[in-house]
Amino acid sequence: MPKDVKVTPWEVSGDVNYKKMIKEFGIKPMPELTEIFNKDILFRRKVIFAHRDFGRILNAIKNKKKFAMMTGLMPSGKFHLGHMILARQFSFYQKLGAKLYIAVADLEAYNTRKQSFEEMRKVAIDQYLLNYIALGLSPKNCDFYFQSDRANDFKKSNAYYSLASNFSSYATFNEFKAVYGKISPGKMNASLLQASDMYHPQLPEFEGKPIDTFIPVGIDQDPHIRIARGMARRDKDYKFTPISSTYHIFFPSLRGGSKMSSSDENSFIAMTDSPSEVKKKINKYAFSGGQATVKEHKRKGGNPDIDVSFQYLKMFFEPDDKKLQKIYEDYKSGKMLTSELKEILIKKINDFLKEHQRKRKLAKKQIYKFIY
Amino acid sequence: MPKDVKVTPWEVSGDVNYKKMIKEFGIKPMPELTEIFNKDILFRRKVIFAHRDFGRILNAIKNKKKFAMMTGLMPSGKFHLGHMILARQFSFYQKLGAKLYIAVADLEAYNTRKQSFEEMRKVAIDQYLLNYIALGLSPKNCDFYFQSDRANDFKKSNAYYSLASNFSSYATFNEFKAVYGKISPGKMNASLLQASDMYHPQLPEFEGKPIDTFIPVGIDQDPHIRIARGMARRDKDYKFTPISSTYHIFFPSLRGGSKMSSSDENSFIAMTDSPSEVKKKINKYAFSGGQATVKEHKRKGGNPDIDVSFQYLKMFFEPDDKKLQKIYEDYKSGKMLTSELKEILIKKINDFLKEHQRKRKLAKKQIYKFIY
Repeated sequence: MPKDVKVTPWEVSGDVNYKKMIKEFGIKPMPELTEIFNKDILFRRKVIFAHRDFGRILNAIKNKKKFAMMTGLMPSGKFHLGHMILARQFSFYQKLGAKLYIAVADLEAYNTRKQSFEEMRKVAIDQYLLNYIALGLSPKNCDFYFQSDRANDFKKSNAYYSLASNFSSYATFNEFKAVYGKISPGKMNASLLQASDMYHPQLPEFEGKPIDTFIPVGIDQDPHIRIARGMARRDKDYKFTPISSTYHIFFPSLRGGSKMSSSDENSFIAMTDSPSEVKKKINKYAFSGGQATVKEHKRKGGNPDIDVSFQYLKMFFEPDDKKLQKIYEDYKSGKMLTSELKEILIKKINDFLKEHQRKRKLAKKQIYKFIY
Repeated sequence: MPKDVKVTPWEVSGDVNYKKMIKEFGIKPMPELTEIFNKDILFRRKVIFAHRDFGRILNAIKNKKKFAMMTGLMPSGKFHLGHMILARQFSFYQKLGAKLYIAVADLEAYNTRKQSFEEMRKVAIDQYLLNYIALGLSPKNCDFYFQSDRANDFKKSNAYYSLASNFSSYATFNEFKAVYGKISPGKMNASLLQASDMYHPQLPEFEGKPIDTFIPVGIDQDPHIRIARGMARRDKDYKFTPISSTYHIFFPSLRGGSKMSSSDENSFIAMTDSPSEVKKKINKYAFSGGQATVKEHKRKGGNPDIDVSFQYLKMFFEPDDKKLQKIYEDYKSGKMLTSELKEILIKKINDFLKEHQRKRKLAKKQIYKFIY
């Protein structure tokens, strides 16, 4: 792992050695999964590659027991392809019986970025919720909420915020420091709220009992989970079931970095990008595993493992394993040129976005079902 | 000021030099007050001796403008005479037009003392609210609430807790440390909630606008106020009016210490003490300014300034200045013996408690007007 690699919830940079992180964070590679999981390329192709205590969730699914999935979003920037890793899991798990809790972390964003609540509300709905719905999120068994505005039910609100406060007595500053490095009152407060986000479904005012809950995250979010699990374990007033988690790899930036950045327009494809923008971005910015000249490429072959266009096909846009395998081999042998590979991806993305944008228009009529 | 004097919100010990504290904390001696204040011995006799920005409240009273008074209680132990300093101010200010906000700091108590919420609710109502009502608290213009259960209105609850979270971004750990000395996540969280207690009346969901608010406290609570004022000042999203404050002296412990302790039964007179208990406690424990023998006392005289019985008469039980003055002189000259002074006090307290206990019974029928 190079020295300049940083993986914290606040920053991800450099190359990421996932195997090493599995070991460091005490998590486990995903177990053998059943057909229902393997039909989805996120699981089959190990985009979701590790977990902690996910066995409980697999058991709940097997026994047709209700379980909960918790996730959060920071309401900033444009919704882009990278957000799909999470969003696609929503409907996947809803179909398997999950109750979804989706927190808009607006209090956290306020503390760390000073965005206005009005603006955040707009972004959360127009950029996130709308795309979630277009990607299959169902209003049934979905609790979409804002941290600043938990519920239109005072019992729920009072319980949710009180839990965050209670948790503060179950951690020390040294633990926060050990987990986060530098920590401020605002970040600590955000961490307590996140812990309440993760565990409040189990309160009497919500599900009413311990419920197997998991949170699908990028591995950079693991510190939040570890500190929340610690606080919940020490809280003897409730018999919380520890939260489970799954970890997905970072969706690569167009430029080839480890994670997309909403602040760099050319590092991602937004859901609202036009066909010509997509074409331009892929052709101009998508980091290539090809050689410097066509002649050299044909002789030496390309490297699909570092080629961003190939990664995008692998993660989302070429669900057919045989076709993907052929692209992999052709590119590696030099038979397929970078321009050809990019052309395949551009067409796939634009077909997808055209359909997605149509669904997004329809989704507008559904919003009221999610927001009180 | 002796070296072992400690004045923090968590502990008060040793002798207290109020003049020095006025200087240290940057607060001011009470200004000349109008007749309406001076009719009350708490003001006339400087039990309430200092303030910060109290001019705004005096102006509001003068101009018959609405203002707010905020206070909090830790739901522990028995309600005793010391609690009357605050409680008597409630009806005093209500009559002058104050809206009262009374917070039961149960989240804070949970974080620092691990009391159960059920038990705290019982203590807050049976020990505190009941006595407040008996001492004149009116349900009109009174918002009595629990930190863990802010309101039966989700908009209010969401706003109140969100403010505590927002405040976390307006302070640094170093500030908390400078103000409190040792600080833990639980204490920091309590401090943020207290700041929300102080400022949330000004939110749109409550009074809807900046409102002159003050908090009457023992001087040991000033650190909470200073840090809350700092956070509110930096929060530019709201135009908060800084909270004003008044400071009262500590009600002396029976044994003569600077503050009563709920954990030492013989350091205070509880509102539920029987006449014989009162008699025994005063005779046995009330710290005396008298001499070792009657003979010596008659010759040298006593010291009313350090005599606890005299202090109790001065603060609550002898409202007649002339009578108090005569007692002062007679005791100082040696004409009045300690046993005689104590007898006066015992009778006054027992007369008061008899009437108070009668009012407390009636108060039970009023509780529902304060609790949703």
